[in-house]
Amino acid sequence: MLVKIKVHAIGVNRADILQLQGKYPSPDGNAVPGLEISGIRMDTNQKVCALLTSGGYSEMVEVDERQTFLVDHNIDFVQAAAIPEAIVTTWLNLYQIGGLKPSTSVLIHGGASGIGSFMVQFALCDGKIVYTTAKAVAKLDYLKNYGNCIRSTFDEFKTRIASAEKVDLLIDILGGRYFEDNLSILNEHGRLILFAVMDGKLSTVNAARILMKNLTITGSTLRNKTPDEKASLLDQAVKNLLPYINQGKVTPLISKVFSLKDYKEAHQFIQSGRSIGKVILKT
Amino acid sequence: MLVKIKVHAIGVNRADILQLQGKYPSPDGNAVPGLEISGIRMDTNQKVCALLTSGGYSEMVEVDERQTFLVDHNIDFVQAAAIPEAIVTTWLNLYQIGGLKPSTSVLIHGGASGIGSFMVQFALCDGKIVYTTAKAVAKLDYLKNYGNCIRSTFDEFKTRIASAEKVDLLIDILGGRYFEDNLSILNEHGRLILFAVMDGKLSTVNAARILMKNLTITGSTLRNKTPDEKASLLDQAVKNLLPYINQGKVTPLISKVFSLKDYKEAHQFIQSGRSIGKVILKT
Repeated sequence: MLVKIKVHAIGVNRADILQLQGKYPSPDGNAVPGLEISGIRMDTNQKVCALLTSGGYSEMVEVDERQTFLVDHNIDFVQAAAIPEAIVTTWLNLYQIGGLKPSTSVLIHGGASGIGSFMVQFALCDGKIVYTTAKAVAKLDYLKNYGNCIRSTFDEFKTRIASAEKVDLLIDILGGRYFEDNLSILNEHGRLILFAVMDGKLSTVNAARILMKNLTITGSTLRNKTPDEKASLLDQAVKNLLPYINQGKVTPLISKVFSLKDYKEAHQFIQSGRSIGKVILKT
Repeated sequence: MLVKIKVHAIGVNRADILQLQGKYPSPDGNAVPGLEISGIRMDTNQKVCALLTSGGYSEMVEVDERQTFLVDHNIDFVQAAAIPEAIVTTWLNLYQIGGLKPSTSVLIHGGASGIGSFMVQFALCDGKIVYTTAKAVAKLDYLKNYGNCIRSTFDEFKTRIASAEKVDLLIDILGGRYFEDNLSILNEHGRLILFAVMDGKLSTVNAARILMKNLTITGSTLRNKTPDEKASLLDQAVKNLLPYINQGKVTPLISKVFSLKDYKEAHQFIQSGRSIGKVILKT
């Protein structure tokens, strides 16, 4: 069933920027970007979030009911708009593919991003040792707020972890020149999950290392999943992970809020590399 | 329980050659190579095969009963010695990790090898389209005997498959310069399983392709599995796959038989690249 939602806030994703640049067209052909929103469902007057295929940069959206979920009254629209992509991406990568459990040592690259900071908090709840990285030292300092995670810059994590406990699960957004370093700090039977390649497409890889350590590498995007697959993922993510947010164990990290009409400014802010956490647009 | 087996025949593996060159030490520290044998179990007088960690190049071996299995009277000792590594490797890679099913299109590199020819036959029984490759045209011609598999040389498979139906599952023994071509002919959600890197360790990889096609790459070796894991795999492999051999649907392909004392000659023969199928030593 399609439902109408009056949009209050929109989570900005890098995919929105790439879509407007023509580099990452939406599978539904819609030119308007926007993958996640919070707002009021018109027929029931409830506060909801929605995961979209596109079109979130609007005052009003129409979406399959299965792509929406209710949010607690104590979570405001800005925070709520930061949840849909992060919760589904975390569920898919950290739990479903990654099989996070109390014995798992995890490295999450880009822990100062909206999704990264989300994953770090979940890994601290449910994993063993949590490593995280950021490009700049200022961002690393921010990550101190998450307590027990071990922090390093992109260029230092290899040395840092090589002398500590290696990792079973690595959530990668870098690709590029860091790919081989990532493989080198994985334990036997370790798993690398790639969901962005911000450091570049081409990597040199020691395939013998993949072989001898019995590693698994998985590329994971939400974008080309079918509506049914997305609905099922969202349903599981909400059931399993939303309680952490409602109980205050995990808090969406908000970097800055812009007005919807200033979305270009918001995109520039993200591209400047200065954001820590999620950038949100308000209608 | 440990049982003694009088060895009749030994399957030769590339790992044996590497072990004697000091490049691939056995996990149990045994200097004597030999991963699979057939013979007579001394306490029961039954014809059996055994999967070993090392030490098969002998007149007599002692092995955990769980690493042995009975073979049919119509399979001779030479054929039987070609079964243990091949059946477990096929079960692990093609079925357990690879999830072979009637809708799966498969590419198996090195179809003229002992294990490759085994996998091709199983894939023809249980998969959809089967592609296979070999280095030399003479070997490709031999693969005609397997009927419906589509054959090409290592250097031509990419062009060949790019214009046909792409593959869901790719069994790789090459690594090296073929890695990226392998990724390019996989379908979305395709899986590459690497169990040797005969073309070299270093590969250049387009990580964006792994990401956007949601590919999975898994390195898979038997060598560093625990005895319990090996016993469990062998048990499942024998239950599920041995019937194909007993019913004549799959036949171990034997290249040449040497005397155990001539094992160096046997190794040279394999290294010359002239073998088609499995090389066997007889006591």
